[in-house]
Amino acid sequence: MKQKLLAEGLGTAFLLIGVVGSGIMGASLSGGNIAIALLANAIATGCILYVIITTLGPISGAHFNPAVTLAFLLRREISGKDALAYVILQIIGGILGVWAAHMMFDLDILQASTTDRTGIAQWFSEILATFGLLFVIFGGIRQKPDAVPTLVALYITGAYWFTSSTSFANPAVTISRGFSDTFAGINPAHIPMFIVMQIIGVGLAAVLLPMLFGKD
Amino acid sequence: MKQKLLAEGLGTAFLLIGVVGSGIMGASLSGGNIAIALLANAIATGCILYVIITTLGPISGAHFNPAVTLAFLLRREISGKDALAYVILQIIGGILGVWAAHMMFDLDILQASTTDRTGIAQWFSEILATFGLLFVIFGGIRQKPDAVPTLVALYITGAYWFTSSTSFANPAVTISRGFSDTFAGINPAHIPMFIVMQIIGVGLAAVLLPMLFGKD
Amino acid sequence: MKQKLLAEGLGTAFLLIGVVGSGIMGASLSGGNIAIALLANAIATGCILYVIITTLGPISGAHFNPAVTLAFLLRREISGKDALAYVILQIIGGILGVWAAHMMFDLDILQASTTDRTGIAQWFSEILATFGLLFVIFGGIRQKPDAVPTLVALYITGAYWFTSSTSFANPAVTISRGFSDTFAGINPAHIPMFIVMQIIGVGLAAVLLPMLFGKD
Amino acid sequence: MKQKLLAEGLGTAFLLIGVVGSGIMGASLSGGNIAIALLANAIATGCILYVIITTLGPISGAHFNPAVTLAFLLRREISGKDALAYVILQIIGGILGVWAAHMMFDLDILQASTTDRTGIAQWFSEILATFGLLFVIFGGIRQKPDAVPTLVALYITGAYWFTSSTSFANPAVTISRGFSDTFAGINPAHIPMFIVMQIIGVGLAAVLLPMLFGKD
Repeated sequence: MKQKLLAEGLGTAFLLIGVVGSGIMGASLSGGNIAIALLANAIATGCILYVIITTLGPISGAHFNPAVTLAFLLRREISGKDALAYVILQIIGGILGVWAAHMMFDLDILQASTTDRTGIAQWFSEILATFGLLFVIFGGIRQKPDAVPTLVALYITGAYWFTSSTSFANPAVTISRGFSDTFAGINPAHIPMFIVMQIIGVGLAAVLLPMLFGKD
Repeated sequence: MKQKLLAEGLGTAFLLIGVVGSGIMGASLSGGNIAIALLANAIATGCILYVIITTLGPISGAHFNPAVTLAFLLRREISGKDALAYVILQIIGGILGVWAAHMMFDLDILQASTTDRTGIAQWFSEILATFGLLFVIFGGIRQKPDAVPTLVALYITGAYWFTSSTSFANPAVTISRGFSDTFAGINPAHIPMFIVMQIIGVGLAAVLLPMLFGKD
Repeated sequence: MKQKLLAEGLGTAFLLIGVVGSGIMGASLSGGNIAIALLANAIATGCILYVIITTLGPISGAHFNPAVTLAFLLRREISGKDALAYVILQIIGGILGVWAAHMMFDLDILQASTTDRTGIAQWFSEILATFGLLFVIFGGIRQKPDAVPTLVALYITGAYWFTSSTSFANPAVTISRGFSDTFAGINPAHIPMFIVMQIIGVGLAAVLLPMLFGKD
Repeated sequence: MKQKLLAEGLGTAFLLIGVVGSGIMGASLSGGNIAIALLANAIATGCILYVIITTLGPISGAHFNPAVTLAFLLRREISGKDALAYVILQIIGGILGVWAAHMMFDLDILQASTTDRTGIAQWFSEILATFGLLFVIFGGIRQKPDAVPTLVALYITGAYWFTSSTSFANPAVTISRGFSDTFAGINPAHIPMFIVMQIIGVGLAAVLLPMLFGKD
């Protein structure tokens, strides 16, 4: 279990390094052309997701995401106690990842985002983004387990672009990004609603996915 | 069959979410640099295609495209009745996907495109794009079935760029994009001709592909 | 053999459609930012290469390139007569592909390029690009045959950027691009020297690669 | 052993051709938009990494990096004498690769970079980048050896963006880039500290990775 928790913490740290770090670099180099910044952000996130899921999947299952852990809990494939430990490590790892990104770019370690991310459109985006992520994960596990790292990486790279929220789809990522007043940040006041929407997405997936992929 | 139709509907909905959503995001962020918008659009579409074909292929065959369903019908690998049901669900799913994209970006749900896409050059593009798509699908099935999701994803990502129509190559996608007055839209008046060209592409493939890949 | 020649012709046609078509689209949309045009051009070329090598490789070996055919001839893995037929079909296919791209973008079918591509730096680039391509192909065949389509696609996508000639590395492609006065064109007067350099690259590969990968 | 050393030299040469060449092309075409230059640079580097690791991995292990060779030495999977020979060939190959890139772009062969890359933020980036690279390599070897070329390629493509140093993570690459006063260059005065940080990253990996992936 200790090894699993280490994997969840380290993996989520790398994920946030990827998301926040590439956001900082993209915004600083793109000279105001946000589309290029977002493209770099999306590609770098996809790259790191493939990497951490491939290397750490066999250890912890490579959740890195409380929404994913909750979905496995609802399927009774992880115990409540283990799930809680996973989530705690995901959040700790994520925040440490954000701080590491700040250090790498010579920014203040402790920050709070001032980027507003709110409104019905973005909330609906988060429901759909989270549902889609679970669709991809459980569909992949059912149909082609080897492809799960690629599936998640490509899904998120695409979803950066086809949702107005840029697809957080992950409560640990959402909380961690509240700690960064950079390109990828989210105003802490807007975090709770994002998480509520992500949980709704998990619920939706729990109801709908068994119709497609069976219960096993 | 119910599960297959659910897969066709949901998959086509995700496809249109990918195409239309990423088009909206790309156009709004790129500050008039359409090349970057199209690059994001093409990459996001390739990403979602890989995802839905990998996860839903084993259920319904992952057509998401009446042109593909017609090609399977001509090969007598799907019955006329099932093909019709597939096509209906593809169109319904596609339109729902467009509406979901509009909701995610806080736009009016009901729209009609005003983007002209017409003329001999674009019509010829659609013939060639559809022929190429079927070439890729049936070549892949024949030579390396595992690679079909990658083949289709990469083909379409490339074909966005090497055809003047950006390769619709799919009547359900064409009809659905008529419902969106955004980057990916098509003036409804120009839809019928696109579909005629796509059907010609299917006919061309039905004649030429057996020479290359045999009849099986 | 008829099927092989059809595969070589069709594949090379698709390759040139990808190269020339995406060049036209990229140049027309990028508003003078050539870097974005070249990025789209490189990505689209990589996409189509993966597609045609995967689907046609089992039929003809997927040369689509007289330099590759010459390399196989030097290894005595194709007869001189077949090699000649391959090369003829590659050139015919390539030119037809260029014409198809022109039709798709509503341009005059018959053109001659006025883009100068000459000088020692570009000539050296073509030697190195062709050597690298053969390194990738024969290294892939030796080490991981399944990966050859991915290897060639990624090599060329990268080589667009790391050679000053953008890596033609293919006499049929070079000749065909002489017929297009668009982004991807090459002044016909500069074609012979490019081909000479490509042949030198083949010779270099014939000498050096057996040291790395053995003679088989 | 001669074949292994040839592989290390040639592979590192190709790596530097990819890094330096695509940097020159990107910078010259992007008209001052550095984000696009870096995107091309990152993608081209990922492409060439996949290529050289796939084709040369079975021969030499595809280190192309003294930090990687050192990590294998610490695991006693290579002898000290062989490790030294590897490192020498990596440096020679890397410098020759830089010179080849200069020739391809018609630049003076002999150059010394004037690009400052220094400061705590970049030093920390190099520690983390190198640790991450070894995490990816040894995690990949442990969990999915077939995926190592993809893992390294995607990791570096992403790490260009999420570290402020753009992830050299390789002493041979660092030294070689000192010889190029172009986009990818590094002021020779700043090389030693980069290498120290890379070695610290190796040490960190030697301590931490066995906790995750075991000792074997």
